[in-house]
Amino acid sequence: MSSMPPVAPPLRAEPARLDDVIVLTHDVLTVEQACADVAHPSTGATATFVGTTRNNFGGRPVDRLEYEAYAPMAVREIGRVCAVARLKWPGLVGVAVYHRLGVVPVGESSIVIAASSPHRREALEAVAYTIDTVKATVPIWKKEFYGDGTSTFGHHGGGEADGAWKANKEFDPSAVTDALEALGGAGKATASERG
Amino acid sequence: MSSMPPVAPPLRAEPARLDDVIVLTHDVLTVEQACADVAHPSTGATATFVGTTRNNFGGRPVDRLEYEAYAPMAVREIGRVCAVARLKWPGLVGVAVYHRLGVVPVGESSIVIAASSPHRREALEAVAYTIDTVKATVPIWKKEFYGDGTSTFGHHGGGEADGAWKANKEFDPSAVTDALEALGGAGKATASERG
Repeated sequence: MSSMPPVAPPLRAEPARLDDVIVLTHDVLTVEQACADVAHPSTGATATFVGTTRNNFGGRPVDRLEYEAYAPMAVREIGRVCAVARLKWPGLVGVAVYHRLGVVPVGESSIVIAASSPHRREALEAVAYTIDTVKATVPIWKKEFYGDGTSTFGHHGGGEADGAWKANKEFDPSAVTDALEALGGAGKATASERG
Repeated sequence: MSSMPPVAPPLRAEPARLDDVIVLTHDVLTVEQACADVAHPSTGATATFVGTTRNNFGGRPVDRLEYEAYAPMAVREIGRVCAVARLKWPGLVGVAVYHRLGVVPVGESSIVIAASSPHRREALEAVAYTIDTVKATVPIWKKEFYGDGTSTFGHHGGGEADGAWKANKEFDPSAVTDALEALGGAGKATASERG
């Protein structure tokens, strides 16, 4: 009998792929949690986007925002955005999207997105695409509370009218459907709801 | 004597501008510190990039990286990159760049960049520009330690030759000088070195 010397297994040509993390929660969001969700030894790049309540909107002082969603639909739509991102940037390893519901005071985060990849271009582009497309396609509703005690309701991206659900300048649900059809697949997402 | 009723001060048309935070350190980097550095009530968007040691390079398993720099020069060059970013995206409120020196094991971060702005486009674009330009223009040197016990030296962006300082494919120090001249200013940066 001859024996062969042991050979180290070759590095996998395909990078790892982590399940998508999609969370709607009433809890405070942290960027470090989203980064931890997408961490993997094969990644050299993690990009994030954090959207926070700022102290003014349309020239008026803002006190706080409040977000509401029909959670199963919002989670499903965010999953579709993640699926498109993975089709557009196949090297993505991890994608995490957290959206807060309820009251979000000035300086706190309403959305945190993280994406990781072996090289930086995919993570950077995927995060920019994801925030743009979540704003355009995910039905999460926003109420603004102004410093003068008034308030307005609106979709995520904001709008014009006072005292009613507002149309969002950016809202275009067909964007993700068209992209999925063009790219030829729906991908897979593992979604959860907390809080 | 007549008296005028008190009038609420108008919101400042110009967004706030925080000093740049530029840190070279042997300590572990955290994305939450960089986000805290650029936080301000007037910002609605924070983008980050985190570069980590990944477990392979050029098909070979990597154990760890080690970074060295002549710190005063590296801090000055990073400050010039930040100055260009602020000229290109005047709405930027905060910019923070942390670079770790010494050994960086697989999964830990060598660079963390954060930028904040009232609206998302400026922060997202500024972070992508800053990582690209730091890679191209800042003299920080890298040594790769492979799983087989060998090592190579090189500039930040990696290179070809074993056992010597490597030329970086991306290294082009004229990039930031040309951009500054084209944009007509050098900006200001507050820099520090720690660790």
